[in-house]
Amino acid sequence: MAQLDNVIHQPVRLQIMSLLVTLDEGEQVNFTYLRKLLKLTDGNLGAHLSKLENAGYAKMEKTFVARKPRTYISVTGRGRDAFEEHVAALREITEGSGRVTDVET
Amino acid sequence: MAQLDNVIHQPVRLQIMSLLVTLDEGEQVNFTYLRKLLKLTDGNLGAHLSKLENAGYAKMEKTFVARKPRTYISVTGRGRDAFEEHVAALREITEGSGRVTDVET
Repeated sequence: MAQLDNVIHQPVRLQIMSLLVTLDEGEQVNFTYLRKLLKLTDGNLGAHLSKLENAGYAKMEKTFVARKPRTYISVTGRGRDAFEEHVAALREITEGSGRVTDVET
Repeated sequence: MAQLDNVIHQPVRLQIMSLLVTLDEGEQVNFTYLRKLLKLTDGNLGAHLSKLENAGYAKMEKTFVARKPRTYISVTGRGRDAFEEHVAALREITEGSGRVTDVET
């Protein structure tokens, strides 16, 4: 059976990664913008991003804009690869690579 | 955002449902056969099937064959619908229905 990535499979992280991979290389997204888009709390988004960062799939960059702290998020090459593999595994599982050959009626 | 079904999203149950929906109407699969196919223990498969049964997605039927207890599993119409909706939601999320429009470089 195809191997699912437990870090990515969790519903909120699946949504985060699905959005991050749409960024072009070198692009980042603002934490607050992402939080509103996903309708999450600061704490919830932060916790999921930390898991993605610990897995090497996303990067958080803290900076100051007009003296206010801002966090920008990007996806790593490894994150893109892992996401692609995860989606391929999902497709393999759900589109019937596995078959029940021994059935009873 | 598309709505994922938490009962189905769990990796083992996603695999179970993916197999069950390949059954034709009126077909059942033997518990032991399914357990071997998924490389699970009796207890693990039983627990996941109970969750699917409680959600109305699968049915377990216990019977005796040559005096030995046998369990057969089938999928309900509601289970097929829920699986189809879940796969559609997965596709919507992972294939970029959501877009990050506010990016920074």
